[in-house]
Amino acid sequence: MDPVFWAVMAGVLALGFAAFLVSYVLRSEKGSPRMQEISAAIQEGALAFLSREYRILAIFVVLAAIVLGVIPDLGWLVSLALVFGAVCSGLAGFIGMNVAIRSNARTAAAAERSLNHGLRLSFRAGAVMGMCVVGIGILGLSVLYFAFHNHDDFLKIIPGFGMGASSVAIFARVGGGIFTKAADTGADLVGKVEKGIPEDDPRNAAVIADFVGDNVGDVAGMGADLFESYVDSIIATMTLSMVAFFVTTNGVPLDNPLAPDAATAWHLPMMIAAGGILASVIGAFLVRVGEKAEMGALLGALRRGTFAASILTGLLSLLAIELLDVNIDVFWAVLAGLVAGVLIGESTNYFTSYTFGPTRRISEASQTGAGTTVVSGFANGLMSNLPPVILVAAAILIANHFASIYGIAIAGIGMLSTLGITLATDAYGPIADNAGGIVEMSDLPPEIRERTDALDSLGNTTAATGKGFAIGAAAITALALMLSYALAAEIAQMGTGGIELVDPEKISLLNAPVIAGLLIGAMMPAVFCSMTLTAVSRTSHSIINEVRRQFREIKGLMEGEAKPEYGKCVDICTRDALREMIVPGLMTIGAPIVVGFVLGKYALAGFLIGATASGFILAVTMANAGGAWDNAKKYIETGFFGGKGSDAHKAAVIGDTVGDPMKDTSGPSLNIMIKLMSIVALVMAPVLVDVNGIFD
Amino acid sequence: MDPVFWAVMAGVLALGFAAFLVSYVLRSEKGSPRMQEISAAIQEGALAFLSREYRILAIFVVLAAIVLGVIPDLGWLVSLALVFGAVCSGLAGFIGMNVAIRSNARTAAAAERSLNHGLRLSFRAGAVMGMCVVGIGILGLSVLYFAFHNHDDFLKIIPGFGMGASSVAIFARVGGGIFTKAADTGADLVGKVEKGIPEDDPRNAAVIADFVGDNVGDVAGMGADLFESYVDSIIATMTLSMVAFFVTTNGVPLDNPLAPDAATAWHLPMMIAAGGILASVIGAFLVRVGEKAEMGALLGALRRGTFAASILTGLLSLLAIELLDVNIDVFWAVLAGLVAGVLIGESTNYFTSYTFGPTRRISEASQTGAGTTVVSGFANGLMSNLPPVILVAAAILIANHFASIYGIAIAGIGMLSTLGITLATDAYGPIADNAGGIVEMSDLPPEIRERTDALDSLGNTTAATGKGFAIGAAAITALALMLSYALAAEIAQMGTGGIELVDPEKISLLNAPVIAGLLIGAMMPAVFCSMTLTAVSRTSHSIINEVRRQFREIKGLMEGEAKPEYGKCVDICTRDALREMIVPGLMTIGAPIVVGFVLGKYALAGFLIGATASGFILAVTMANAGGAWDNAKKYIETGFFGGKGSDAHKAAVIGDTVGDPMKDTSGPSLNIMIKLMSIVALVMAPVLVDVNGIFD
Repeated sequence: MDPVFWAVMAGVLALGFAAFLVSYVLRSEKGSPRMQEISAAIQEGALAFLSREYRILAIFVVLAAIVLGVIPDLGWLVSLALVFGAVCSGLAGFIGMNVAIRSNARTAAAAERSLNHGLRLSFRAGAVMGMCVVGIGILGLSVLYFAFHNHDDFLKIIPGFGMGASSVAIFARVGGGIFTKAADTGADLVGKVEKGIPEDDPRNAAVIADFVGDNVGDVAGMGADLFESYVDSIIATMTLSMVAFFVTTNGVPLDNPLAPDAATAWHLPMMIAAGGILASVIGAFLVRVGEKAEMGALLGALRRGTFAASILTGLLSLLAIELLDVNIDVFWAVLAGLVAGVLIGESTNYFTSYTFGPTRRISEASQTGAGTTVVSGFANGLMSNLPPVILVAAAILIANHFASIYGIAIAGIGMLSTLGITLATDAYGPIADNAGGIVEMSDLPPEIRERTDALDSLGNTTAATGKGFAIGAAAITALALMLSYALAAEIAQMGTGGIELVDPEKISLLNAPVIAGLLIGAMMPAVFCSMTLTAVSRTSHSIINEVRRQFREIKGLMEGEAKPEYGKCVDICTRDALREMIVPGLMTIGAPIVVGFVLGKYALAGFLIGATASGFILAVTMANAGGAWDNAKKYIETGFFGGKGSDAHKAAVIGDTVGDPMKDTSGPSLNIMIKLMSIVALVMAPVLVDVNGIFD
Repeated sequence: MDPVFWAVMAGVLALGFAAFLVSYVLRSEKGSPRMQEISAAIQEGALAFLSREYRILAIFVVLAAIVLGVIPDLGWLVSLALVFGAVCSGLAGFIGMNVAIRSNARTAAAAERSLNHGLRLSFRAGAVMGMCVVGIGILGLSVLYFAFHNHDDFLKIIPGFGMGASSVAIFARVGGGIFTKAADTGADLVGKVEKGIPEDDPRNAAVIADFVGDNVGDVAGMGADLFESYVDSIIATMTLSMVAFFVTTNGVPLDNPLAPDAATAWHLPMMIAAGGILASVIGAFLVRVGEKAEMGALLGALRRGTFAASILTGLLSLLAIELLDVNIDVFWAVLAGLVAGVLIGESTNYFTSYTFGPTRRISEASQTGAGTTVVSGFANGLMSNLPPVILVAAAILIANHFASIYGIAIAGIGMLSTLGITLATDAYGPIADNAGGIVEMSDLPPEIRERTDALDSLGNTTAATGKGFAIGAAAITALALMLSYALAAEIAQMGTGGIELVDPEKISLLNAPVIAGLLIGAMMPAVFCSMTLTAVSRTSHSIINEVRRQFREIKGLMEGEAKPEYGKCVDICTRDALREMIVPGLMTIGAPIVVGFVLGKYALAGFLIGATASGFILAVTMANAGGAWDNAKKYIETGFFGGKGSDAHKAAVIGDTVGDPMKDTSGPSLNIMIKLMSIVALVMAPVLVDVNGIFD
């Protein structure tokens, strides 16, 4: 039996488990008519956004497919893979969001019964997304494998799948991210600051848009994001497969290479991913607590589940390596990635949770005003680069030492293999957030709101950890894709002596085009972040004006006698977010092509690595500064430094406002950006083989 | 005659011009007894700080000299050069600051007569610093040249001079930067925010510390900073000299190489620098306006002066190239650097001056609160990377195309050659700032304060422009030093075929240790910034507590019946700033050594380029975001969006507080940091030649 059938079985298992979870969610109580009414408004807005977004993406994907199809060195099979990748990515986001928008009122209703009921429902709904992403990802790749693995151009075709997934992801993450943060900021600034009404108050016209944003940004956007991380890491390993059966430890060709043949080198990543899925399902079953468990117990159970999944993945990888007769050295590469991923999660937790010093110091700095809050949070974000960068560098060195550059790609898979369970903990956050809003708008007693707030807060902690390891995995995957690109563009090739450089002077770090490319690449994430931050500001301005207009023009709104026009705000967010996502997305796809054709394929390699290094650092800084500001505010709200309403709290709220677009729009989009640029380069590589840069 | 005598003459000219300016300053009116009293307090504090700082630096320099001396591959001549470089750098800072602290009360007195008198005096005092830096720099290098240019180890010895200068610079910039921003923030937070008393009010205990900070940070610190930029760019060119007489256009060895011999390749950078000094002196004479000129006219005159100096430098470089019989292709490298420098200045001006859109949009964002102000300023800083990075990349590509890697170093000199005049416009700012404070404390009529405020504001504009080109030059110089390092560490060598890689696989961008080094290098500037931002926060906390204590414990202080103990705040700043500068400084010096010995010389090359790329981007972001926030606040103060005291103004003040430590402590220190790490690597290169990294 072809070992990839194991991957198919794992994919079916993931989707079957997802179906089981969906049926649990849909069977549970729908909540009061008021809750259902609010939930219906959210559903309507979210689906309207997604359908308009997908229509735009469809146009882009078709155009991109035509371009790739007519290029003689690429062809229609690459186009087909691109379209297939885009559809799979869209599907994963669509299913995940569809379950999420059906779970918010149900979570609110469950929270009415008990905290534990609320938790269980929202976690299971979040797990649907996790399982769909890994299930559709591995099945999609399996389909491609069975269709084309005997085709001569197999290694040209599969990157197309990744490019399709990544293109959808960048637009979905940027568009959704702009939507969610613009609505959030707009609602808060007019509601909380100007009008002094509470968060999620039904009189606020932007409140439904805010809830819609959680779903289109934090669920659908994140799903597309992690779908592409997952498949890209597998694709990078497959495209480096030729390395595996040529070389062994330290790149030196020996009698017993890493893998017996190319096919095995393709099978291994699929098998490790399959093991990760099985481990995630088992891990998810371990996440259970008694009926009366406290938050702490649940966080403990959750960590138990993810740790167990990690250990199990390690064991299953070892088994896969033995079964496929792959050199045991490859196992150390898997392990390097797996361990680095877990430790990056711990480091993120240290820098963003208020149980530790760094975040508490931000709360402390809030006592001297917003200025010191911002500086202190920013300093914390910058410092938080130290552990993940060292860990990723160490993982790369160890993986390369044991299994050459094939090992680097394998380490990326090791890091992402438990995605099924970690993504579940991520996706549950916005569901709990929505449920809280529905509780607020349904005039339920405050203790129910306290429960949903508790759920939301736990979600913040797990989301921060998840974000950290997603960034680390993105950096390793982007590097692995860059190395694949170098082989595909014939910068290096497999020779009798292992990996051989075609023109060593040109790919040297001392060559000016490589250096110039590296500098330009390092600039790209900065410009990209600037664009996305500005887009959030611009869109939130439109929302602010609209909410102000409604308060001014709708008589009786402030008194609660009239209803705001929620749909208007949803429409504005939809229109603006979809418009604003175009330029950053196209720039990301276009930049590597321009650099490749103008400065040549060597400068493009420098460009990719410069972008990866600076993107990694900016993403970590933004995610962790944002997470820490958010939690520094929450720490004050628990009663420290004057508590809620104090001057310190006001300063901390400003810090949180600064961090919001950083951690939820710009930061996560960078993950996709660096991989997308690498995969575009990889897809275009056959065309760039003979292109000379103007300074070559 | 040895052409370096021209450099000696230029150095003497610079110092002679400086002496003429000093005599002008010292001859002018000293101001009222009250002014002299305040000025004396500032002088005392500044000199006390400098003497304690220099004592610490002396210990460090002696220890470093001993370490270098006992290493067999380096030796005592390298130590001697290190000590000499440190002394020259200290001397330039000391002279410049000594004139500055004698000019503040005199500028205040001159401003009593007219705006134009105030301008002339403060500009001339600032020009002393510019001329001292270039004069001492070129004379110091000339001394080394005449002493050792026939010595076999000449190219090992001169980097020692740069390392000495850079080590002093990092401590001076970080220590001075912490002092000035901590005192500033501390004074403002208690004075303006808590007590509601005006800026520079004599009742504020931190006010003298604030003035002292301007001198030790913005004058002495900046002097040491630009001294090292200047000499490092010349040293980088000298150490790449062997390239110049081996290769010509595009690195290919031809019958007519770039320079006829090694000596000429050393002479050329000195000659270009000498031409730049002459051009700066002539340019300075062009900066003159009529007795009743407005601010606009002066800014125009100033730009005329710097533009004229740039054009003149270009012409004099061409002359030098002709005289020395150097290949004309080298001229295009000079020109690439010169033009890129001027354009970077223009770009910085666009992104930070409130006459343009970007800064005005930050003012506009202030209407919706501090959160949007900070996000909008940060987005602006990120976007402002686009032009300088493209310009530096283009300069590198063009310079390399015409004159190989020797050309890259030459482009750095081209960019910095007009430093004499541009630094004059930088150093005048803090003098005007001090003068304003003295006016405020001397109870002079408000119109005098308005004049000094106008002077200060002009200084902000010119300082921002100067900062931009200093960063660009730092990036090019750091790259040139990295290339020198690669030759010195025998990663590459000059062979019959031009530059040849010794082990091409290892220095390839595809080699894992290079990639890991690059990631770790890219992280360093982030961690360094975090440390310096945190140091400012910690020190300002001490100041805040002390100022509060004095208001609480000194009876009649608030009523103006008792005097605060200014000296206490100066002491706290001195003690804390000197303590806080140690770790970031030692980390910068130690990191490349650790990376070199643990991961090997190839990883270190990756480390240096990663640090340069990410340091460049962080420095530009911080400098321009900080400059734009400052000016966005000033724009509101001119009456827009509600003017002074409005909510928008309060939000803009918070933006400015965030930007202050970024633009005046962390950002400028990064310039030094990236060059210092490269020059430490260059000095250590002979030791690292045979060191194997653990993953090599």
